[in-house]
Amino acid sequence: MAQVYAARRDRLRERCTAGGSATALVSRPANVRYLAGAAPEGAVLLLGRGEDLLVCADSPAQPGPQSERGRPDEALRVQLLPAIGGDPAVAAADVATAQGAESLAVEEHHLTVARHRAIRSVAPRLRLADLGGAVEQLRVVKDEEEISCLRIGAEIADQALSELLESILVGRTERHLALELERRLVDHGADGPAFETSVATGPNAGRRGHRPTDRRVEEGDFLSVCLGATYRGYRCEIGRTFVIGTSPTDWQIELYDLVFAAQRAGREALMPGVAYRDVDRAARQVLDSAGYANSLPSLTGHGVGLEIDEDPQLAPAAMGKLDACVPVTVEPGVHLPGRGGVRIDDTLVVRPEADGGPELLTITTKELLAL
Amino acid sequence: MAQVYAARRDRLRERCTAGGSATALVSRPANVRYLAGAAPEGAVLLLGRGEDLLVCADSPAQPGPQSERGRPDEALRVQLLPAIGGDPAVAAADVATAQGAESLAVEEHHLTVARHRAIRSVAPRLRLADLGGAVEQLRVVKDEEEISCLRIGAEIADQALSELLESILVGRTERHLALELERRLVDHGADGPAFETSVATGPNAGRRGHRPTDRRVEEGDFLSVCLGATYRGYRCEIGRTFVIGTSPTDWQIELYDLVFAAQRAGREALMPGVAYRDVDRAARQVLDSAGYANSLPSLTGHGVGLEIDEDPQLAPAAMGKLDACVPVTVEPGVHLPGRGGVRIDDTLVVRPEADGGPELLTITTKELLAL
Repeated sequence: MAQVYAARRDRLRERCTAGGSATALVSRPANVRYLAGAAPEGAVLLLGRGEDLLVCADSPAQPGPQSERGRPDEALRVQLLPAIGGDPAVAAADVATAQGAESLAVEEHHLTVARHRAIRSVAPRLRLADLGGAVEQLRVVKDEEEISCLRIGAEIADQALSELLESILVGRTERHLALELERRLVDHGADGPAFETSVATGPNAGRRGHRPTDRRVEEGDFLSVCLGATYRGYRCEIGRTFVIGTSPTDWQIELYDLVFAAQRAGREALMPGVAYRDVDRAARQVLDSAGYANSLPSLTGHGVGLEIDEDPQLAPAAMGKLDACVPVTVEPGVHLPGRGGVRIDDTLVVRPEADGGPELLTITTKELLAL
Repeated sequence: MAQVYAARRDRLRERCTAGGSATALVSRPANVRYLAGAAPEGAVLLLGRGEDLLVCADSPAQPGPQSERGRPDEALRVQLLPAIGGDPAVAAADVATAQGAESLAVEEHHLTVARHRAIRSVAPRLRLADLGGAVEQLRVVKDEEEISCLRIGAEIADQALSELLESILVGRTERHLALELERRLVDHGADGPAFETSVATGPNAGRRGHRPTDRRVEEGDFLSVCLGATYRGYRCEIGRTFVIGTSPTDWQIELYDLVFAAQRAGREALMPGVAYRDVDRAARQVLDSAGYANSLPSLTGHGVGLEIDEDPQLAPAAMGKLDACVPVTVEPGVHLPGRGGVRIDDTLVVRPEADGGPELLTITTKELLAL
């Protein structure tokens, strides 16, 4: 693994050198973890002219499960801050100056104005440049090791969901179902939930990002569930909608079939070289043409990895094209105020047609189940 | 309640005017909630020359339990962003310019460099100043309504903990115990856990911020637990250490008594007018003089409220003095690598001696229980 991290840092170094700043300071936690193998709280990575350096706050150790926290690349020098309450970013800028750096590229989309100013005051001669989303861009295409973590996470989420479906649901609250799902994720080996588990019943069903309430499941409800597991830091996502009771009504079947068709269109559009916006359009136009243009969320899907919401965005105004080995969600939905709705959400990996097309990681059935 | 929020905004306005910037942009979520009653994701508050304005991203509604999300002050104008993916802070700066503002105080410790630059480019004539921690300072002293939310949260945490102690513990993992505690918090009416519940057994016991692992509780272990409930947005904290089995060993009793004495010294030092560092010193010197100077965390306690870690810090280098109606934790601990340790943590409200001295919110016994 050490070689993987070193290779990632080398790729970033090339970009930085090409951008005119040989030295970079990475502060966004997921980016630090990607390049260093772990991101202890507050740690920053200095990609230096000399040797690379992970600077950590000298805070009390918080050694959770290794799988969850990651383990720092052993080839990397680790420096602990001597001063309590000091800022590792400031200490790293100090080291950069000592190494003779003239400019330092920082993550302006992550560093606060106050920290930026603190760096400038400790290293006034250092020219501060913007690293922009360079690390986020490197993270878009995953290697097979990363994909295998996502695959295991998806299996765990599938398992937790299938167990829930075997239990009695009527009368239980959204909150309890969400907590039970999270417990099952951990039971099956997840580091933890990949994001706050969403359970939405009745009029809440189909709402993206719905936070569980005390509403209880009732006969006749739509029930939509969205959950994900974190496994070795990698986060996946699955969403399904069910009907409670024996026979879904006509409007429920119709709406479900429509969202299913939109989601399938989105999945089928996932090919290397396809524009992000075209995937979005494939799913969106199915719902649009059925008259739901105003009920649609702003995106159809997004990348996943060390964070649950990564590049790319599959949205109308997104720029760029899919590559092979990019994991994304496809998650269209329709929510009708007062009535509820449907969301169907999978995590897939973009693969060339020669390899069989998109690889579905979340394999729970998408038939409309009546529970 | 509307009057409460308006009064808070007026107090901030006075400070801003005194600081030379009549217009302020509040972006840190807990600060937005404090002044506006709610902090929808990404929302910012413009404290203007004209009417105050809550600017929200036009994202899909995420209406969780009202208790959890808060409800915006009805006296406040709410503006939804028309453009998907737009930044409410930039939109607010635009409004400030339209209102004729010449300068705008922003939260430089929260805004990123990139957002600050975006504001500057949309409003190039606006002089950007630093609001600093002005809202955080207003938040330090709580009103009785806020304290009553903390009191209810503490009752919930006490209840969840007492139920756990009645169950069988040996053989269960740290992770499972933590998940069960979180479920019980919600059962008893919490919005959710106030922070990641910590359960630490055997050699992990006594470690501040320990993340639960798969280690199982064994006979003879120290078991330390730290949890808290969020109630109407307010977060409290309780930590206790127990011994598993019938008879604690001598070193366990000794260490427990020592940490208990330190924690009591810290609690007894909580009086209006006492310096933060003197509370820290009261607890710390008990442990120091027993030879544990090097095993101690960097602080003895901290404020709680809308965030779990607020001002003040009770730490050696902290500047300032306690006021009445400031809720703080007192949480000294000792961790011995390889052996485990003890932490005892309460949430209390500083009260004048005439009112009976510090009010203990977390009332679970601090006797050394053998479970």
